[in-house]
Amino acid sequence: MSSDRDLLIAANEELYAAFEAGDLDRMEALWIGGPDGALARCVHPGGEFVRGVEAVLRSWALVMANAEDLQFILTDVETLVQGETATVNCTEIILRPGAGPDPFVSSHAVTTNGFVRIEGRWRMWLHHASPVMGVPTEDAE
Amino acid sequence: MSSDRDLLIAANEELYAAFEAGDLDRMEALWIGGPDGALARCVHPGGEFVRGVEAVLRSWALVMANAEDLQFILTDVETLVQGETATVNCTEIILRPGAGPDPFVSSHAVTTNGFVRIEGRWRMWLHHASPVMGVPTEDAE
Repeated sequence: MSSDRDLLIAANEELYAAFEAGDLDRMEALWIGGPDGALARCVHPGGEFVRGVEAVLRSWALVMANAEDLQFILTDVETLVQGETATVNCTEIILRPGAGPDPFVSSHAVTTNGFVRIEGRWRMWLHHASPVMGVPTEDAE
Repeated sequence: MSSDRDLLIAANEELYAAFEAGDLDRMEALWIGGPDGALARCVHPGGEFVRGVEAVLRSWALVMANAEDLQFILTDVETLVQGETATVNCTEIILRPGAGPDPFVSSHAVTTNGFVRIEGRWRMWLHHASPVMGVPTEDAE
């Protein structure tokens, strides 16, 4: 039997699997919907907040259409379950096909993914990804 | 009597007030501490995750020492209380003294701040701020 944490890790991985598969139906199934859909919030790296599940899914459709062949490797995956809500913090290693001698170009982002448990399933309500730019922390804010 | 949401908004504003005052004691009083301190996570714009309250406070000390005279104006402040946890999403308009003809230079960041209620007080466990770079969403992830 899967633990809460296992199910949460699986829900978190589903975001990236749906992305890699370019499958908007899987993406929609992961995110909160119905009346709760208004709570959805999403920040793509370098972007503003996208609000509401319809706008969030449109943003993913755009990202997926313009970023084929991306692959994600997740590291430093940390989970925090707090009652019926949970947060996953992780680092996304993003691999793109390279144009030069290297087969891949990699970049990375750090991410806070927020979930809420609805009828026993972890559904995503928040994705906040930010670029890691190698700037010294002391200049950053 | 203050509502949950009022207290949460006040806790969120305290982060920026403590920063502007350069007051690390106020910063420490806001963040979770003791055994819970290990849960603290912080991302300054463009940075990696900082983990654990000691490291998080050191990172704020560095940022404050190197960014005097910053002022924050918060917009689009949204709160979500989920039992004993809460999330505040907001946009930070950051004003710095300008070197040229303009008295201020402004930039902005979008932020997810996470709180947990401990003995009736909202304490911060997560600060994830990311730069808004004006890149098209579809190229961002």
